[in-house]
Amino acid sequence: MSQRTKIKALLQSQQTEIDVTVKGWVRAFRSNRFIALNDGSTNNNIQIVVDFENTDPALLKRITVGAALSVQGKLIASLGKGQTVEVVANEIEILGDCDPETYPLQLKNRPSLEFLREKAHLRFRTNTFGAIFRVRNSLAFAVHQFFQERGFVYLHTPIITASDAEGAGETFHVTNFDLDNIPKTDTGEIDFKEDFFGRPTNLTVSGQLEGELGAMALSDIYTFGPTFRAENSNTTRHLAEFWMIEPEVAFNDLVDNMDLAEDMLKYVIKYALDKNADDIEFLTQRLLEEEKTKPQNERSEMTLLEKLQFCLTNDFERLTYTEAIDILKESTPNKKKKFVYPVEGWGTDLQSEHERYLVEKHFKKPVILTDYPKEIKAFYMRQNDDGKTVRAMDILFPGIGEIVGGSQREERLDKLEQRMNEMGIPTEELWWYLDTRRFGSCPHAGFGLGFERLVLFVTGMGNIRDVIPFPRFPKNAEF
Amino acid sequence: MSQRTKIKALLQSQQTEIDVTVKGWVRAFRSNRFIALNDGSTNNNIQIVVDFENTDPALLKRITVGAALSVQGKLIASLGKGQTVEVVANEIEILGDCDPETYPLQLKNRPSLEFLREKAHLRFRTNTFGAIFRVRNSLAFAVHQFFQERGFVYLHTPIITASDAEGAGETFHVTNFDLDNIPKTDTGEIDFKEDFFGRPTNLTVSGQLEGELGAMALSDIYTFGPTFRAENSNTTRHLAEFWMIEPEVAFNDLVDNMDLAEDMLKYVIKYALDKNADDIEFLTQRLLEEEKTKPQNERSEMTLLEKLQFCLTNDFERLTYTEAIDILKESTPNKKKKFVYPVEGWGTDLQSEHERYLVEKHFKKPVILTDYPKEIKAFYMRQNDDGKTVRAMDILFPGIGEIVGGSQREERLDKLEQRMNEMGIPTEELWWYLDTRRFGSCPHAGFGLGFERLVLFVTGMGNIRDVIPFPRFPKNAEF
Repeated sequence: MSQRTKIKALLQSQQTEIDVTVKGWVRAFRSNRFIALNDGSTNNNIQIVVDFENTDPALLKRITVGAALSVQGKLIASLGKGQTVEVVANEIEILGDCDPETYPLQLKNRPSLEFLREKAHLRFRTNTFGAIFRVRNSLAFAVHQFFQERGFVYLHTPIITASDAEGAGETFHVTNFDLDNIPKTDTGEIDFKEDFFGRPTNLTVSGQLEGELGAMALSDIYTFGPTFRAENSNTTRHLAEFWMIEPEVAFNDLVDNMDLAEDMLKYVIKYALDKNADDIEFLTQRLLEEEKTKPQNERSEMTLLEKLQFCLTNDFERLTYTEAIDILKESTPNKKKKFVYPVEGWGTDLQSEHERYLVEKHFKKPVILTDYPKEIKAFYMRQNDDGKTVRAMDILFPGIGEIVGGSQREERLDKLEQRMNEMGIPTEELWWYLDTRRFGSCPHAGFGLGFERLVLFVTGMGNIRDVIPFPRFPKNAEF
Repeated sequence: MSQRTKIKALLQSQQTEIDVTVKGWVRAFRSNRFIALNDGSTNNNIQIVVDFENTDPALLKRITVGAALSVQGKLIASLGKGQTVEVVANEIEILGDCDPETYPLQLKNRPSLEFLREKAHLRFRTNTFGAIFRVRNSLAFAVHQFFQERGFVYLHTPIITASDAEGAGETFHVTNFDLDNIPKTDTGEIDFKEDFFGRPTNLTVSGQLEGELGAMALSDIYTFGPTFRAENSNTTRHLAEFWMIEPEVAFNDLVDNMDLAEDMLKYVIKYALDKNADDIEFLTQRLLEEEKTKPQNERSEMTLLEKLQFCLTNDFERLTYTEAIDILKESTPNKKKKFVYPVEGWGTDLQSEHERYLVEKHFKKPVILTDYPKEIKAFYMRQNDDGKTVRAMDILFPGIGEIVGGSQREERLDKLEQRMNEMGIPTEELWWYLDTRRFGSCPHAGFGLGFERLVLFVTGMGNIRDVIPFPRFPKNAEF
């Protein structure tokens, strides 16, 4: 009897006229009579009907927005609009008060997303963030289930590392030194032998290189863990700490790799649509409301729900970088000089505006670009016979731009070493990586999916800081 | 036709006399005729039968241990022992050679676990580590599936944090400073305003406090992420970087908490037993072999498989710390002064020898100890009315000791603040944590499971460095 039933289960109950215990937080209390109670199991509230004439007024006064309640009562069919069942309360216990004078989340004045970012410890209690984090949960589990169904091994690659996988990105130092008293050698250099790991270490920017080590024995692996960039980017699309999914598959070529990525994206989006229909419906409405404040020409042509459905039903368009450049060069915005970065010729990196043009205007569906110029891609990508391009692929999504980046890997030791030397990547430090090409090398391919970009897409939110519980960005590590 | 079939699927195939393509690495090559090929999908190899009379001798020479092959052939019923099917090769392609002169993993001289730790990039290719990492994978997924089935929300709590949850453990600093040139203020102190996050930050030791923030809105959450300890412990049971699972449930008390933890442990062990029967059978044999080298009295009374079954079929014994102390005081090893740390009375922390006595000798099953003295537990645990103990629980496993630690949390603001003050935990820094007790507080409980301890238990391995792909410990951050 004191075992609570979750509100999601209550709302789906086929049985009525049964005694139930429900626990949660007050979202609203109308007319001293109707409590909207939420426990986070669903975006929907259960209505509690209070017999206010026979309830202690002192208790009624404590039923305020945010208060935690335990309610015993009877589940009955509801006559009210918008719900099929409600609970007639027999007994209400206040588990925790919530003073309306000091509670930061008075839902009457709908708090802005910016305000809620400052209150990230409480924002889970709003409809929007409840929906976001339930969708995020479903997407994370769907990723695991997708790979598990296909026999992949989930590999925990290291977070603290002595190598910088990409030879790119700025990394965070990890140290055990007293920063006020860093030991020095006789020659005045930092004595890293004295540090915890006996050498300079940093936070990983990617688990790929270690993932490849696993794939060279287990065939199909994936990682799903945090990665870090110490870039001073104060944008709506960058975080200093974010989660990445990086599958790596022995014997796969670039076409297999594209198939895998497309299947995965469709699978996880479908999973969220199935499991979180209410949340996505809510987020669709939220986005419509938000877009009403924008000028007509900045609004999306499709609703959130339509955009998600659209990704499921369309094959992603696959073309080479070279073909994309031709399209962009000939495009109206390029000829009319509407691009901030004019597309002048082969070899330049694509900007977000170009990616969005291809996806949103030209093809009107997700796009996979392949075979990029080697100069703008990482050292480990497989070199094509043309001597100019590598077997890279980027998947571009509407509104998001690049959501997946991957490649077939260079499995030929001589080609790999040559490229590393050209690019100044130290081969000695990566001896273990090169060992996989020395001993039983084979064609293989993989990609990285920025998890927050995916959540951003599926929730229709505009700022990446709103889709991770406690975002990390320059000058912010609160909570 | 060129699409490979995984070896696990081939070995389970009901169909024979079909054309197949199989890809993997050579584990053995006998009599120029029989290749044992493995692709990591299972511990078992598929036998490839080579028509050596009609095969180029130059190619035969390249079929060495560790080489990567692609084989096209016919799957037939096998007459040989130990397998039901085998592949008669039509065509063998060497994808990657493996020079026997330089390959570190010559399986003839069975390499030691210590040696393989130095070759962690290649050890996935051995039977032992293939089995370990497939079991680890299953345990990780089972954790997710267990919580998802129960409607929990997977929450990614931050890795980089400005707070030290436990007020315990040494933490790693995270910084963007040039360590050779750390900016100072006018008064000569480190100017953390200039650091990336504008304040001192470190790697998390636990996601619990942030997890509680989620539970106070979503009711049932869990974390599964990396945590860190900068402790200079060079033991077989400690890592500087390890993965933790931390569920947190609103409205749960300590009994609910114990039920949840016991259910979870049984669920994930059962999942691994079901999914990884071959791997666990292999690891059981491995452990038997290893124990043969030990004196009789140090060997386990049960095999690995028996120990796992035993955990499933027994209710965990639940008793208070106080009851445990009484048992230990009266125990034969205490009276005969066999304990390194004699049990003299109430209030002392239990050592591993005491925990193991309770589990392995006295009760002979997993044990949950509750209601520890408040002095030896963290500030956030709910205080009992006796003024001496807190609603803590530790789950003790045979051979492992503590595998789970948890508690009902102190939900009463005044009691919590009082305890924080007594223990010198800064209340201002944790304003956001205290806010949950100010606004709609409620009873809740949670626990932490050290994932590697679980993998250690289920694989029967003796050293925690062998159950995580790339272990991090003092003076080691290789790979």
